[in-house]
Amino acid sequence: MDRDELFMKQAIALAEQAAAHGNEPFGAVLVKDGEAVYTNENQIYSATDPTFHAEAGLIRRFCGETGITDLSEYTLYSSCEPCFMCSGALVWVRLGRLVYGAGNSDLAALLNEEGCNCSKLVFDHSPFRPEVTSGVLREESLAVLRAYFAAHAKG
Amino acid sequence: MDRDELFMKQAIALAEQAAAHGNEPFGAVLVKDGEAVYTNENQIYSATDPTFHAEAGLIRRFCGETGITDLSEYTLYSSCEPCFMCSGALVWVRLGRLVYGAGNSDLAALLNEEGCNCSKLVFDHSPFRPEVTSGVLREESLAVLRAYFAAHAKG
Repeated sequence: MDRDELFMKQAIALAEQAAAHGNEPFGAVLVKDGEAVYTNENQIYSATDPTFHAEAGLIRRFCGETGITDLSEYTLYSSCEPCFMCSGALVWVRLGRLVYGAGNSDLAALLNEEGCNCSKLVFDHSPFRPEVTSGVLREESLAVLRAYFAAHAKG
Repeated sequence: MDRDELFMKQAIALAEQAAAHGNEPFGAVLVKDGEAVYTNENQIYSATDPTFHAEAGLIRRFCGETGITDLSEYTLYSSCEPCFMCSGALVWVRLGRLVYGAGNSDLAALLNEEGCNCSKLVFDHSPFRPEVTSGVLREESLAVLRAYFAAHAKG
């Protein structure tokens, strides 16, 4: 078993543990220099927080606890392809490498096989999208941004 | 000033407050039945957490504190168009309505005017993207999902 498989096995074990804890079956392991430095499992139900996915939850806890916010030298192992939200979080911390097991297309195929209440599938398969109104007080909003940028201009 | 503008003014004031606190200039207000029920400002630097945006931070705190995870009857006012990550969070809580001021295209235009260190712009304008390896232990990963779905099948 190579190193990628070893850490993926750990991520999958966390996914099983998440389900055993009444959450959804997703786990993640953060690795640096060949060693696991942080792990997390999905906690959306136990934390009553729909954003507490394995990946996004790991990122916020790891960064908050260690003060490290640049993960360009880290690899994240995820038992399943990260969702839209978590993918955004991975970009914000400049993650160096992502390794995942099952993909979202695999999940979609499973959905067709079985009736399923997994919220991960809500994203692609549900009509839940907010109504959007844009441009309200746009100029005032821009003024704050402009002031900030002027105060933080490069050089 | 109509109701949308009133709440947007509050979101913009929070954005100014965030900058005053050494964070980036973004604020958000959650509204139900015409009343503000929760507010949040960007805290990425003070929390050393790059995911602590005004919107995603508001969602996780509000849900965690109240136990409410379905925001289909709520409106979120954001001083600026939510990023990729926060947009995902808004879908996970089934947000009913989103109202924002400046848009991401406005931000991009400001970037062209001024040198700028605002991380919000990193997303669209930087080369930071993780290297991705997919399908590691895919079958084992799928087995966990399949077991979960079977245990949570509808009907």
